[in-house]
Amino acid sequence: MVLQQPTGVPVKGKDIELQEEPKPVQGAGEFLVRMTCMSLDPYMRGTMNEISYGSTLPYPRLMTCGAIGQVVETMHPDFPLGSLVAGQFGWQDYAVSNGKGVRLLPASGGVKSSWYQGVLGMPGATAYYGLLHIGEAKENDVVLVSACAGAVGQLVGQIAKIKGCTAIGMTSTGKVDIAKKFGFDAVIDYTGKSVPDLIKEIKEAAPNGVNVYFDNTGGPCTEAALASLAKYGRVSVCGQIAYYNLEDPTSASAFPGTMTALRKEAKIEGFIVTSLPKAAPGDWTEAQTEMANWLKRGRLKVQEDVSTGLENAFDEFLSFFQGVGDKNNVGKKIVNIAEPPLPIPA
Amino acid sequence: MVLQQPTGVPVKGKDIELQEEPKPVQGAGEFLVRMTCMSLDPYMRGTMNEISYGSTLPYPRLMTCGAIGQVVETMHPDFPLGSLVAGQFGWQDYAVSNGKGVRLLPASGGVKSSWYQGVLGMPGATAYYGLLHIGEAKENDVVLVSACAGAVGQLVGQIAKIKGCTAIGMTSTGKVDIAKKFGFDAVIDYTGKSVPDLIKEIKEAAPNGVNVYFDNTGGPCTEAALASLAKYGRVSVCGQIAYYNLEDPTSASAFPGTMTALRKEAKIEGFIVTSLPKAAPGDWTEAQTEMANWLKRGRLKVQEDVSTGLENAFDEFLSFFQGVGDKNNVGKKIVNIAEPPLPIPA
Repeated sequence: MVLQQPTGVPVKGKDIELQEEPKPVQGAGEFLVRMTCMSLDPYMRGTMNEISYGSTLPYPRLMTCGAIGQVVETMHPDFPLGSLVAGQFGWQDYAVSNGKGVRLLPASGGVKSSWYQGVLGMPGATAYYGLLHIGEAKENDVVLVSACAGAVGQLVGQIAKIKGCTAIGMTSTGKVDIAKKFGFDAVIDYTGKSVPDLIKEIKEAAPNGVNVYFDNTGGPCTEAALASLAKYGRVSVCGQIAYYNLEDPTSASAFPGTMTALRKEAKIEGFIVTSLPKAAPGDWTEAQTEMANWLKRGRLKVQEDVSTGLENAFDEFLSFFQGVGDKNNVGKKIVNIAEPPLPIPA
Repeated sequence: MVLQQPTGVPVKGKDIELQEEPKPVQGAGEFLVRMTCMSLDPYMRGTMNEISYGSTLPYPRLMTCGAIGQVVETMHPDFPLGSLVAGQFGWQDYAVSNGKGVRLLPASGGVKSSWYQGVLGMPGATAYYGLLHIGEAKENDVVLVSACAGAVGQLVGQIAKIKGCTAIGMTSTGKVDIAKKFGFDAVIDYTGKSVPDLIKEIKEAAPNGVNVYFDNTGGPCTEAALASLAKYGRVSVCGQIAYYNLEDPTSASAFPGTMTALRKEAKIEGFIVTSLPKAAPGDWTEAQTEMANWLKRGRLKVQEDVSTGLENAFDEFLSFFQGVGDKNNVGKKIVNIAEPPLPIPA
């Protein structure tokens, strides 16, 4: 999948297209990975702009994502034939790697390999550190989460409950029932509601205000949440999908959040899980250990939103920006490309 | 001085008026204080609204402020005749107190009593905790301060320099030269400038971005500062005077600060020095000890903006909202009411 720099919502055919190329060939110290599944996440839109997530690679370029694959040819001693690996790869069937940034996955152990893209991967670490480190959630706090049925949101709600918090979610009409399955104490349907309506519903669910708002969205949910903060409230800003496609996301506003922060003596803190300010880059050991424990003890439910075929990946990606729907964006979005174990050439 | 609840900028005669009343009389366990000087601060406008600084006392009521006075009659063993005291009092010549919330000041020791309203009082603690605790300023950080010639701003700049930071100030035309005397590495004159102009000037002074923005104002300075944050930047929100007089300071904005926080992985944190989230309420020992040391070693300069007479206090208060001017709002605003030592009745 080859990408041109998009303006606004990317358009299939114009900004991105599928290209057929010969299967790449590994050299000495390299190996060939056949992708089995790939992960789609809203942050990818941010990586297409210079203004978000720092630097931008030159265009046109391969779309990239977190993916799981199997080593099908190898000239690298640490990556034997047949092993499962996780890393950042292109939206492609085959990739050559020298092993840099690629992790070997455990053989099995009752864990689905796609979970390394979700609860045991970046979305899991995002929920864990965003709620507990950035948001400083603690027992008896009221935690409010936008996009609460999404890959990150459903984990935030469950971790909040495990930690003894009240968990309130916000999602669209079609996902309220799904969200409730993750144990939220209350789920607010934001579809078609004004900010004052949302403020009223939040007040009903959280009469003493919101201690931690985990912001996956921006937009009206966020405006209502900011107005609903309790004293010393914390806002953990994880995603701002409502704004990613705007041409000038820096356009000034009358109240740049600072007035809210002062009124509530509150903290509004943005974070990117790959570069947490007080942790080693990419060291998610604490999160992964805790999440794996909770999974084993049945305290975490995992829901995936699975589709099949590389050719459908772009439509699946666009569905993040459509949002509302009965089936869209419930849980971690995974695209299956091939089912492991793959046939290994002799 | 008796106050009615104002809308917008308070108006003399309508919202506030001087009333003559008999001198109050202390009872058992009480004492009578004659005010010597009072402190004026922008936060007082916030205390007139329910939406800011929490609760509001019933109207009409006495205007209150931090003040220094001398005990001129006493029936309280801990507050002997002639002693200097500091506390929250009314805008009045005489007040009766039972000692609650009132501190005895040291006899002298080379410290001007009005300094307990400034560098050794609330503005000093505000600058200290706001810069070092909330803003997490550390050596080699670039610190930007709005209203840099004001009571808090001038101290923030000096503490930043003591701590090995680069200090950049923003102020209006008439105060640039005064601000430079406090050791700022650069002072930006914001008068008549657009947000993009200000962003450009900040970039010249801080090519790698701003690590800590100490926000005394809100408004265009803040919009420009938010756009100029470095990665992991911290915004310490101390005052938002640009917004205090608006009728609906909660009106929604397209970008409620969360997008800024995410883009820069930044923290925007508001605080009120009388209720710091991670400190005992009103325990400013650390700040006062450090500030007193720096004063003794000549590392802190103090500038006061002194006027005389209770009847002029309201005009002086209003000058906060006029801002620009050669003489207005440079340093801690003090109103002298009577010069100690006062004659003690036999």
